[in-house]
Amino acid sequence: MENPGPQKQSAILLISCPDQKGIVAAITKFLYDNAGNIIRLDQHVNMQENIFLSRVEWDLQGFAIPREQIAASLSELMQKFNSKYELHFSDFVPQVAIFVSKLTHCLYDVLSRYREGEWNISIPLVISNHPDADSIVKKFGINYFVFEINDDNKQEQERKQLELLKAHDINFIVLTRYMQILSPEFIAHYPNKIINIHHSFLPAFPGAKPYHSAYDRGVKIIGATSHYVTSDLDGGPIIDQDIVRVSHQHSITDFIRKGRDLEKIVLARAIWYHLQHKVLVYKNKTVVFD
Amino acid sequence: MENPGPQKQSAILLISCPDQKGIVAAITKFLYDNAGNIIRLDQHVNMQENIFLSRVEWDLQGFAIPREQIAASLSELMQKFNSKYELHFSDFVPQVAIFVSKLTHCLYDVLSRYREGEWNISIPLVISNHPDADSIVKKFGINYFVFEINDDNKQEQERKQLELLKAHDINFIVLTRYMQILSPEFIAHYPNKIINIHHSFLPAFPGAKPYHSAYDRGVKIIGATSHYVTSDLDGGPIIDQDIVRVSHQHSITDFIRKGRDLEKIVLARAIWYHLQHKVLVYKNKTVVFD
Amino acid sequence: MENPGPQKQSAILLISCPDQKGIVAAITKFLYDNAGNIIRLDQHVNMQENIFLSRVEWDLQGFAIPREQIAASLSELMQKFNSKYELHFSDFVPQVAIFVSKLTHCLYDVLSRYREGEWNISIPLVISNHPDADSIVKKFGINYFVFEINDDNKQEQERKQLELLKAHDINFIVLTRYMQILSPEFIAHYPNKIINIHHSFLPAFPGAKPYHSAYDRGVKIIGATSHYVTSDLDGGPIIDQDIVRVSHQHSITDFIRKGRDLEKIVLARAIWYHLQHKVLVYKNKTVVFD
Amino acid sequence: MENPGPQKQSAILLISCPDQKGIVAAITKFLYDNAGNIIRLDQHVNMQENIFLSRVEWDLQGFAIPREQIAASLSELMQKFNSKYELHFSDFVPQVAIFVSKLTHCLYDVLSRYREGEWNISIPLVISNHPDADSIVKKFGINYFVFEINDDNKQEQERKQLELLKAHDINFIVLTRYMQILSPEFIAHYPNKIINIHHSFLPAFPGAKPYHSAYDRGVKIIGATSHYVTSDLDGGPIIDQDIVRVSHQHSITDFIRKGRDLEKIVLARAIWYHLQHKVLVYKNKTVVFD
Repeated sequence: MENPGPQKQSAILLISCPDQKGIVAAITKFLYDNAGNIIRLDQHVNMQENIFLSRVEWDLQGFAIPREQIAASLSELMQKFNSKYELHFSDFVPQVAIFVSKLTHCLYDVLSRYREGEWNISIPLVISNHPDADSIVKKFGINYFVFEINDDNKQEQERKQLELLKAHDINFIVLTRYMQILSPEFIAHYPNKIINIHHSFLPAFPGAKPYHSAYDRGVKIIGATSHYVTSDLDGGPIIDQDIVRVSHQHSITDFIRKGRDLEKIVLARAIWYHLQHKVLVYKNKTVVFD
Repeated sequence: MENPGPQKQSAILLISCPDQKGIVAAITKFLYDNAGNIIRLDQHVNMQENIFLSRVEWDLQGFAIPREQIAASLSELMQKFNSKYELHFSDFVPQVAIFVSKLTHCLYDVLSRYREGEWNISIPLVISNHPDADSIVKKFGINYFVFEINDDNKQEQERKQLELLKAHDINFIVLTRYMQILSPEFIAHYPNKIINIHHSFLPAFPGAKPYHSAYDRGVKIIGATSHYVTSDLDGGPIIDQDIVRVSHQHSITDFIRKGRDLEKIVLARAIWYHLQHKVLVYKNKTVVFD
Repeated sequence: MENPGPQKQSAILLISCPDQKGIVAAITKFLYDNAGNIIRLDQHVNMQENIFLSRVEWDLQGFAIPREQIAASLSELMQKFNSKYELHFSDFVPQVAIFVSKLTHCLYDVLSRYREGEWNISIPLVISNHPDADSIVKKFGINYFVFEINDDNKQEQERKQLELLKAHDINFIVLTRYMQILSPEFIAHYPNKIINIHHSFLPAFPGAKPYHSAYDRGVKIIGATSHYVTSDLDGGPIIDQDIVRVSHQHSITDFIRKGRDLEKIVLARAIWYHLQHKVLVYKNKTVVFD
Repeated sequence: MENPGPQKQSAILLISCPDQKGIVAAITKFLYDNAGNIIRLDQHVNMQENIFLSRVEWDLQGFAIPREQIAASLSELMQKFNSKYELHFSDFVPQVAIFVSKLTHCLYDVLSRYREGEWNISIPLVISNHPDADSIVKKFGINYFVFEINDDNKQEQERKQLELLKAHDINFIVLTRYMQILSPEFIAHYPNKIINIHHSFLPAFPGAKPYHSAYDRGVKIIGATSHYVTSDLDGGPIIDQDIVRVSHQHSITDFIRKGRDLEKIVLARAIWYHLQHKVLVYKNKTVVFD
């Protein structure tokens, strides 16, 4: 890692509420009154929906309120504005689980970034419905658990997966090309905490074999989309997308090859945004404070 | 125009046929035997479909066969390979008609490029279903014809439009945001000779109001698509596409503003490819020899 | 224009000052205390330089301070934070002058956007060092002034240009491929108020004939850059850049053709950002609140 | 790997020579006469330099000339056209060496792709001037050799490196952020066979710390460039480039983070093109038949 730089201990407040006069004034006054040095303030008003969304990050050093009392101190203010909010600390290390099937390019990429220290996380385990990726995962010193899934055992297997996830205090799940549809019940345990990479430019080509469909349609650009998983297949809030040009020279194999690079990057960017608490979700859309 | 350069008089052969050994050898031998200097040769074999597609351009200067006999000279060869083909000459000036409705950004762009000499064409007329663009078109010294279209008169109006087009020997039609669906009968008169610009990244968001749909879906990238018009609405062979990033900061109005720039460029590029005879169509897809 | 929407009368404050605690709190409190409804608040802290930069836009409707007294009301606050600031009103219509030489693609594009109502401006005149574009400019109903420039008369001609600009109350100048270097004295009259489009991806290929240099170097991507003009040739603060892929198939003529489209868009975007007061300049760089 | 597909055994001829009539006819006739089924034919004529460049790939199955006699059979034809040429076979597995310093993101990416089978190569060793990456390389089961380099020992160390490379029959070298300048003598052993990734959009920001320079200049787009190494630092023939947008929100650390993704992809694409024999070099530029 080139130039990682010193990392400040900071607090991050994510807030969304009905738009109204004085919100920013109240929040910034609260921080100012408590000697909080704002590192970054982002806010967005969606005029059509009349929603105020904001992310405020401030230095914990010198802040007048002890870390463990900040949430309580904020609650009155948050209630006054009828807001939903989350409070995070930059030095918290989330426990992350990876789900993978047979294709391993995104898995390799995620594990390499993890080992390089690109993200401040811990990955205690990888879950798969196939044994194929075992040796890769082991090479990175991570536990690998196989849950084979068929028409009859899905509910039972998901229950066991959840037990395992809870046992490891998993905060966040990344699907690196996991080819099973998670049940709404499973997803409900991790709302906006499961990121998937879909290998098309959504909403074009949802579902299976998007590269084949793109090839058949004769598009000149292909894409990849990272999104939070909801019970609507490939319909969750989009976090990031990117594209690459293709031409008649490119076969489906070329589409897949070029697409792999997109998938890796678009997934990694979504993970980074999520870990930095830069993503807010509202009405099945995201605000990403890049 | 910077550096337009001397333009050679050249012949362009577009050919598509079942793939088979010896095609390129036969074509290049034919040209070599007749002292034809190849300016550019492009060819593509679609392995899945076993189709051979090629574009050959050669200098007419010094070519042994007189221009008016080239087609006849080629026919035996073309029949041998069971090929569909077109022969064009680079100094031919096509007659182009523009169709427009109320939005004029693409119209302005096309007429400006025309007046700047970017394309070697003649635009004798613009057709519209609204009177709005009359003064713009007149400003560029071009005739403007209004054919109002309602539920009852479409067939009759299209018949009159076709008469007008035939009277002006129109070879090629450009729809610069023309908000009427052309009938299959009309389209049949200009197969792969009508270019439309659609304001989305097809196949996402076909039909009306794609920017609104894109906004509602929360995409992070919007696009535009130029394609040949077929009887399948927004389903014709794609010639070019391009995209631009958007974020939560952007309203629908911003989408529309950013999209306009895409539309202008993606349409202009398709026109250029078409005029250079760089586009071959097969199985509702295009080969574009950029 | 699709969906222009109702435009609010708003005030826009641009501010830059040394970063310090309480700035945002103070500004937002000022607005809140005076019943100001914030439409959009953007702020950025450059940590390396310890500079705070912000753009606040609020609705004039219902604001307690009359428009003509806002500047005075703000001055105490602005002085307290030792800030440089500008106050703008969204309904002000700036007077814009265009400078052009022989190439007219950007000129056409700017005038077309103007006539379509894309920008809320008035263009009373176009200035050139050549007579070539006269008929185009006249077609758009705008006055065209020629100031031929040679080695001896530059100072004198610039003096006359400035007189003309002052006589028309010009607020802002756009160089649509103007091939003369403006003197530092001239530029000093319009600091960060002259936008140029340079036909390369700066800092690569400054100066003359960048497409030729790009071709000779064998780059795979070409670009265009819009920037404020300073006395450092092609060295002013960059507002926007964009790129397009090229390949060995493309000649210098193709580079120029593809580049023209970039130039038009990158210039138009810079004009839009400037007119929306979304650009702040510091240390020869820009903050653009897109 | 999704859908790798059956791989044909094919021969690939790369040819460059002065442009002249009849070249393509002669080559394709040679193949046709020997029952060669062309899989793909690409050719390009650089008009300015009057150079003909081509890549022909044909199926070895059914070809009348045995593999080991093809070179001899071609030589007469190649001499007739005064051409430089290379003959390759698609089933040949090149021996590839990696050079790395301390930054390992490109190394991880290259080794992951290698282990996934994305390229048909063998990587017997990684060379470094630092011990840091040892454990990574070992994890992938590859030998790691450290050659520390200082002001006095460079010539001697390069001599030893060359010995090692020759001992392993290395055909091709990839520099995954190797922070030493190779001597012209070293490079002469691998002309157009050493690929480097430079972390800027060349020719902007050659040399050290390009992300810092880009940040200081205030660019809105950063890039990466893969190129063949010549004795001209960062001046060799460019194979591929790509870019990503940045804004004032992004610190140098963000530039570096975003740039890493570019570097990985732009390097991997160059390796792929090289391995497919899709790159021809002439006059310090490349033709890449994508």
